[in-house]
Amino acid sequence: MTIRVELGTSLLARNEEMAAEIRYLCQDNNIFLVNIMSSPGAGKTTLLEKSLNFLKTHIKVAVIEGDIATTRDADRISAQGINAVQLNTNGACHLDARMVYQAFQKLDLSALDLILVENIGNLVCPAEFDLGENLRIVLLSITEGNDKIVKYPVMFRDAQMFLLNKIDLLPYTDFNLAELEKDLRTINSELEVFHVSARLGLGIEAWSNRLISIVRNHRRSES
Amino acid sequence: MTIRVELGTSLLARNEEMAAEIRYLCQDNNIFLVNIMSSPGAGKTTLLEKSLNFLKTHIKVAVIEGDIATTRDADRISAQGINAVQLNTNGACHLDARMVYQAFQKLDLSALDLILVENIGNLVCPAEFDLGENLRIVLLSITEGNDKIVKYPVMFRDAQMFLLNKIDLLPYTDFNLAELEKDLRTINSELEVFHVSARLGLGIEAWSNRLISIVRNHRRSES
Repeated sequence: MTIRVELGTSLLARNEEMAAEIRYLCQDNNIFLVNIMSSPGAGKTTLLEKSLNFLKTHIKVAVIEGDIATTRDADRISAQGINAVQLNTNGACHLDARMVYQAFQKLDLSALDLILVENIGNLVCPAEFDLGENLRIVLLSITEGNDKIVKYPVMFRDAQMFLLNKIDLLPYTDFNLAELEKDLRTINSELEVFHVSARLGLGIEAWSNRLISIVRNHRRSES
Repeated sequence: MTIRVELGTSLLARNEEMAAEIRYLCQDNNIFLVNIMSSPGAGKTTLLEKSLNFLKTHIKVAVIEGDIATTRDADRISAQGINAVQLNTNGACHLDARMVYQAFQKLDLSALDLILVENIGNLVCPAEFDLGENLRIVLLSITEGNDKIVKYPVMFRDAQMFLLNKIDLLPYTDFNLAELEKDLRTINSELEVFHVSARLGLGIEAWSNRLISIVRNHRRSES
């Protein structure tokens, strides 16, 4: 048992060192780094596809795609004319800072304002690993049910922005919006909340504009 | 790195020992053990709620509910008049055999034919841990998208039964059934497939009857 705790500590300590390196690279290049997390199939890639249309006309953006297998997600992003780096974890259930640092080596950092990292679809493990990000976004889709906030609390406690996706499917489910709002207030009252349907493009312009404004404010304060 | 590999090996070896203990308990009591896995919110608990109505009139069944936090799922199952043991992992991303063994201590094994284990909502980590089960069922919901088969291959490769849930939402998504079937054939051609809508009760009787028949055949062959 002792070994297990020590290893966990050293694993997370090593991750913190790499996250610090990433923060240094971001500061040096005035880049804003976003870590996007959710269950599998909550709609992270579709959100990115639709949002990049707005983002790319205002700021210089690249995407790092985390997946266990396949380059499908990076291919979808590249099809938008956006630089996308695919990270395959070959079984690992989360991205760590070392992987993201490796992806940074494939990007021209001096030519970017924003890097969006799409983490592995997993509502548990990715929350434990700091990637050196400026902003953590967690996505929940209507069809997953509103009880996920209290059942997977760490992910929602440590995020700053919350996107409720597939809002168009609300009439076809038992999702309880009032209960969701009560649980969010209890677990993380500072979460900034957006309702979207990535597939239909609903709410995408509003949240994209908000992200652009956050990135610009950050760049002004850093420069 | 060496320590990490050794630890992983001993962790899985210890898990195998506990899984063997569970298999011994199941054989001794002529119990059939099922491990149900999926993403968060794919509908495992709703599936159980609806299926238990059929199962409980034919066989003696109990449920072990795995969650990171809350007793919500076990409460939902108990409300059906079924014995349910809640396991809270307090952050861990999967159930292991030791946890399930502890839950077994809370059940009257001599009075049961079937134990259904609902694993943590996670399409990655639970696949690595043998719980001593006779049958692995993986649930995918229509709203997660058909690409999950190739993106999370281990979970689908190691299961024997596949339930496609929320089939009623097919018209409101871009889910490609033909692609799903092609990918399933490639990754695991022996998977037994059922289409269901747990929420609406569609297909529940058919798969419940199939499960009852599997349990009865197993009991006959063991006794």
